[in-house]
Amino acid sequence: MSFNSFGHLLRVTTWGESHGPAIGAVVDGCPPGLALSETDIQPWLDKRRPGTSRFTTQRREADQVRILSGTFEGRTTGTPISLMIENEDQRSKDYSEVASAYRPGHADFTYDAKYGIRDWRGGGRSSARETAARVAAAAIARLIIPEVSIRAYLVELGGDAIDRSAFDADQIGANPFHCPDAAAAARWEQAVDEARKAGSSLGAVVECVADGVPAGWGAPVYAKLDGDLAAAMMSINAAKGVEIGDGFDAARLGGEENADAMRAGPKFLSNHAGGILGGISSGQPVVARVAFKPTSSILTPVPTIDRDGNETEIVTKGRHDPCVGIRAVPVVEAMMALVLADQKLLHRAQCG
Amino acid sequence: MSFNSFGHLLRVTTWGESHGPAIGAVVDGCPPGLALSETDIQPWLDKRRPGTSRFTTQRREADQVRILSGTFEGRTTGTPISLMIENEDQRSKDYSEVASAYRPGHADFTYDAKYGIRDWRGGGRSSARETAARVAAAAIARLIIPEVSIRAYLVELGGDAIDRSAFDADQIGANPFHCPDAAAAARWEQAVDEARKAGSSLGAVVECVADGVPAGWGAPVYAKLDGDLAAAMMSINAAKGVEIGDGFDAARLGGEENADAMRAGPKFLSNHAGGILGGISSGQPVVARVAFKPTSSILTPVPTIDRDGNETEIVTKGRHDPCVGIRAVPVVEAMMALVLADQKLLHRAQCG
Amino acid sequence: MSFNSFGHLLRVTTWGESHGPAIGAVVDGCPPGLALSETDIQPWLDKRRPGTSRFTTQRREADQVRILSGTFEGRTTGTPISLMIENEDQRSKDYSEVASAYRPGHADFTYDAKYGIRDWRGGGRSSARETAARVAAAAIARLIIPEVSIRAYLVELGGDAIDRSAFDADQIGANPFHCPDAAAAARWEQAVDEARKAGSSLGAVVECVADGVPAGWGAPVYAKLDGDLAAAMMSINAAKGVEIGDGFDAARLGGEENADAMRAGPKFLSNHAGGILGGISSGQPVVARVAFKPTSSILTPVPTIDRDGNETEIVTKGRHDPCVGIRAVPVVEAMMALVLADQKLLHRAQCG
Amino acid sequence: MSFNSFGHLLRVTTWGESHGPAIGAVVDGCPPGLALSETDIQPWLDKRRPGTSRFTTQRREADQVRILSGTFEGRTTGTPISLMIENEDQRSKDYSEVASAYRPGHADFTYDAKYGIRDWRGGGRSSARETAARVAAAAIARLIIPEVSIRAYLVELGGDAIDRSAFDADQIGANPFHCPDAAAAARWEQAVDEARKAGSSLGAVVECVADGVPAGWGAPVYAKLDGDLAAAMMSINAAKGVEIGDGFDAARLGGEENADAMRAGPKFLSNHAGGILGGISSGQPVVARVAFKPTSSILTPVPTIDRDGNETEIVTKGRHDPCVGIRAVPVVEAMMALVLADQKLLHRAQCG
Repeated sequence: MSFNSFGHLLRVTTWGESHGPAIGAVVDGCPPGLALSETDIQPWLDKRRPGTSRFTTQRREADQVRILSGTFEGRTTGTPISLMIENEDQRSKDYSEVASAYRPGHADFTYDAKYGIRDWRGGGRSSARETAARVAAAAIARLIIPEVSIRAYLVELGGDAIDRSAFDADQIGANPFHCPDAAAAARWEQAVDEARKAGSSLGAVVECVADGVPAGWGAPVYAKLDGDLAAAMMSINAAKGVEIGDGFDAARLGGEENADAMRAGPKFLSNHAGGILGGISSGQPVVARVAFKPTSSILTPVPTIDRDGNETEIVTKGRHDPCVGIRAVPVVEAMMALVLADQKLLHRAQCG
Repeated sequence: MSFNSFGHLLRVTTWGESHGPAIGAVVDGCPPGLALSETDIQPWLDKRRPGTSRFTTQRREADQVRILSGTFEGRTTGTPISLMIENEDQRSKDYSEVASAYRPGHADFTYDAKYGIRDWRGGGRSSARETAARVAAAAIARLIIPEVSIRAYLVELGGDAIDRSAFDADQIGANPFHCPDAAAAARWEQAVDEARKAGSSLGAVVECVADGVPAGWGAPVYAKLDGDLAAAMMSINAAKGVEIGDGFDAARLGGEENADAMRAGPKFLSNHAGGILGGISSGQPVVARVAFKPTSSILTPVPTIDRDGNETEIVTKGRHDPCVGIRAVPVVEAMMALVLADQKLLHRAQCG
Repeated sequence: MSFNSFGHLLRVTTWGESHGPAIGAVVDGCPPGLALSETDIQPWLDKRRPGTSRFTTQRREADQVRILSGTFEGRTTGTPISLMIENEDQRSKDYSEVASAYRPGHADFTYDAKYGIRDWRGGGRSSARETAARVAAAAIARLIIPEVSIRAYLVELGGDAIDRSAFDADQIGANPFHCPDAAAAARWEQAVDEARKAGSSLGAVVECVADGVPAGWGAPVYAKLDGDLAAAMMSINAAKGVEIGDGFDAARLGGEENADAMRAGPKFLSNHAGGILGGISSGQPVVARVAFKPTSSILTPVPTIDRDGNETEIVTKGRHDPCVGIRAVPVVEAMMALVLADQKLLHRAQCG
Repeated sequence: MSFNSFGHLLRVTTWGESHGPAIGAVVDGCPPGLALSETDIQPWLDKRRPGTSRFTTQRREADQVRILSGTFEGRTTGTPISLMIENEDQRSKDYSEVASAYRPGHADFTYDAKYGIRDWRGGGRSSARETAARVAAAAIARLIIPEVSIRAYLVELGGDAIDRSAFDADQIGANPFHCPDAAAAARWEQAVDEARKAGSSLGAVVECVADGVPAGWGAPVYAKLDGDLAAAMMSINAAKGVEIGDGFDAARLGGEENADAMRAGPKFLSNHAGGILGGISSGQPVVARVAFKPTSSILTPVPTIDRDGNETEIVTKGRHDPCVGIRAVPVVEAMMALVLADQKLLHRAQCG
């Protein structure tokens, strides 16, 4: 219900601004007795952390997470788990000109329009830095669903899609783009370099697959698994589209092509549905896809206005990701984990 | 929070099955003093009602709505508004074979997997008939946002898209497809006829534009306007994808192409963002697009299993829409209205 | 979150006004597979129904409940259960003078102050008639907690308390006051008769005991079992106080008197705590007590004002309960059942 | 909905254990533009802080609050405000024997029964230390309702009530008991000293009055102002009873005595209702009363069992308040402020 909380039963509340003293999350509703320490969370944050390749922002953050509550002797107690990550590399001066003029594509104008006040340092609350708190929270969610394995990767960058026939899961961790197609990764390297040199940026599409989800998670009508995933994914910074299974391509199939026939098992002969029927998981892999717009912070001057309504131009200096979609990969995984863990608990509540 | 309720402050709870005695909605949180009678709701239901052209199911439902509470002397009182629509044309016999075998693409299998019991008559709760309750509720939501006008239409059917340069708003009401391009409508007529004759079905893409939304509606991080819209749209039966603004196409643009430059006014020189930045409305038209899969009920036999796990085939007789996307148009509008009215109240709560 | 919904997971939304066409409840989140028909609900409504003795209002309502959704072949399906009770004996004319003047002790003034509009017929939404919907919903809640037995009764009427040493559970159903002390019931009969003849009214205290609640239901900090019970009970019309266990008397005990010592079993040597420690059930009987003010509708003229602010006097004619506490007994039981069933599901969600 | 969050729109999530590294609160939904710094919060924490007189626990905590997010240049931004208070004086060794045996009256047994694991250091999450987070959060709530002034005080201690005719508001801050009756304060001093020396403890009743609440806050049926207050107050550690207005005494009045007659203004000639009618504020002072049981930690040995079910005795050494009711005063005020601020926003949302 509240603005910064997510989930029905596994409730995650995130807080913090890009250039405040810290960011964090409170994870409420976690089952008791799960082994949990900072070392269960840190690797996921490290995966998301900026500055790990030349294709991401050079902001340096250790992103060290601390657990401030909710565990005892290395196990969750069932009480809220407070996670905190201190902000370290806050070069607020880089953002000084953002204070007065609105960066097109950013939330600068809309935050001002809504609140009449805006923490302009690094985008404040609208910064993608907030997603570190989600990644930390999702590390806990993963402990709740050990039966599920989640894997996200880029399937398209700057309009250049992977070759599905060349899909190699082992490649995902072998290149800075989380790309399962080695040839595509090579092309993308060049594309991102060019975009950065040109002061431009690129969009991307992230795909996420959750294996091991049993049939029965999700609920009608407004707690559908796909509805929750759509909200979760669209809440990620720069997301502009969400698909489940074949998504928009399903709208181009005939009824008999799209039907996932069943055989004894039960098993399905295809998975156009992306593992969800009527808002409830079918036992097949859950598949979601998320479109990310190109980074709005670019070096090309863009016409804009200042707070007083005067026309001006803006160049967003600072340090930025030329393609935010790359760093969105662990965030998409995080949101998948949060939704699934929450729905598991919800299912258990109603159906035992 | 609950499974069948929607909205933060304007809370809509829908109930009812396809072949039960009635369906309905309880609308809670509506501002007092709004003029409301059945005649404000009925036209929207009539627009959604089946059997109005040969391109939709021939099920006949008067879909007469009754207001059972929440109004006094023709005005809303601020107390919950209970809406009921009685089911009339319930030919449960048509569905008898659905009782034992699972229709691929439907929720038959997943409901059984989740609940261990399933009202198989017409899909029960998973039937698109439930959307009538949403359309009725949204008629009330519209009263809360008189400053906003909402218009949805089909932009693609069976993979055949409209010609944007031929967009004519007046055409939308002039053909049974809610199609703004007369030439496309003519082609679609043929396509749907062919699909129906072949016992097949087609998918579609619905676009929805809300004009008049002021800047400032929506909230970080999990009550973003686009996050709420994504959940709302994905909760519609047969929806498989949601886009805001340029959506997946935004992922194919360069940063400078995608940036919506601003000039004094404030005004924007383009609307790639679909009227939402950082989860908050920008004052531009809010644009969403929803992909609907082809109707899963087809006359072509599809391999499936029965409740005991035995392999069989199924043909879904009954009366069905050859393209559910057509009848989804008023439902997409309804979800847009519900989200916007809710966010208007939420904004007023926090920002006065 | 919403105004007219109750419960975390077992969500009950009630609707309806005293003199509208009907009242009802939507019960969402009910586990599937429970045997349920109208005959499971009707007896509880009959117990609450007015006009069963000369000590309650003579309004005649059959209070026939209909199940409109959520069951199939006599079992719950896990989808929302819609319950409707049509209003029959609506003598709106009795309330005509209430239309202009505010009845002291009633919600007339505050509804007008809040909403600027008010359904004055029989109190509209603020009428205790709404509690019939709760009683109906609670009949379903009881099916979720077969291990629990709930019993409420009056322990005080008009300031005259029962003799605890004369407590006889069998007496509760043997007199019109749900009084476990036969001697007190006899005194109360006289007291209520006198009050009615004098055009006055009396208050009462209802005690409710739930046996069979296992240890472990409830949760810190804001979903405490006692916190939920307090909200539930205080939401009943005319309730002005809620106690758990010894309640206010606990504030008068020394620490060693109040401590419920434990012995192997585990068992407790006393139950000052009323079965709840730290917001979580202890396995002892859960005990709550609710104070009801005297009926505000009295025949004695009371100074008041009309809608225009002019001073006047009002006599509330209509048909009224001389002691609303009597008819509150099944409502208190209902709220206990709703809270416990909800907390059972909540506990199962988090702790398996 | 979640276990550790409170409020409809002004959502407060608290976290932290008595002897963990810190405790805190996240306040979401706060209106933007309010002047806020740590100095607005600290005085309220200082008022609640232990060790300020010999009548409260000698645990020493600076209780320094830090604002980690949600403000910019000294004003709230509308984003979540994260508050943190580090724990300093954590003598966990004092609690070592609590690790194995259950302290009667405490949540030790019930937490173990629920979660199967328990942070036994100082009561963990069930410690009254959690209320510091509420007091901090409520300091923000107070900024939202500048029109309201809230004042709580003890009206009874160890069964010894104040003399209402001797009520002197100036006395409240003049003695360590927040007692408005100087003579009673003198008696209580002796009583508490005796109880402490005897290794015993005492209960108390706190009264809280909110002046300046306009008519119209609160909502039917489950968001009633008194229902929210009941939940809020009962959620405080050691609370066992809640009354609104005359509370249980109202049950002993006749209908004409209890009716608060109205005169032009509007004004009321009395306030038996405690400022709430039908769950909505009437414009009169809102009055609540909360009963606190005697501190469960006492030096007198009490029979109990250990985790293995063996019978034993326990003496709770540590440092404890001989009467928790004394330190509950600022917490009661805090909960009043949180409820009222939340309901103000809720009212604004629906009624503009």
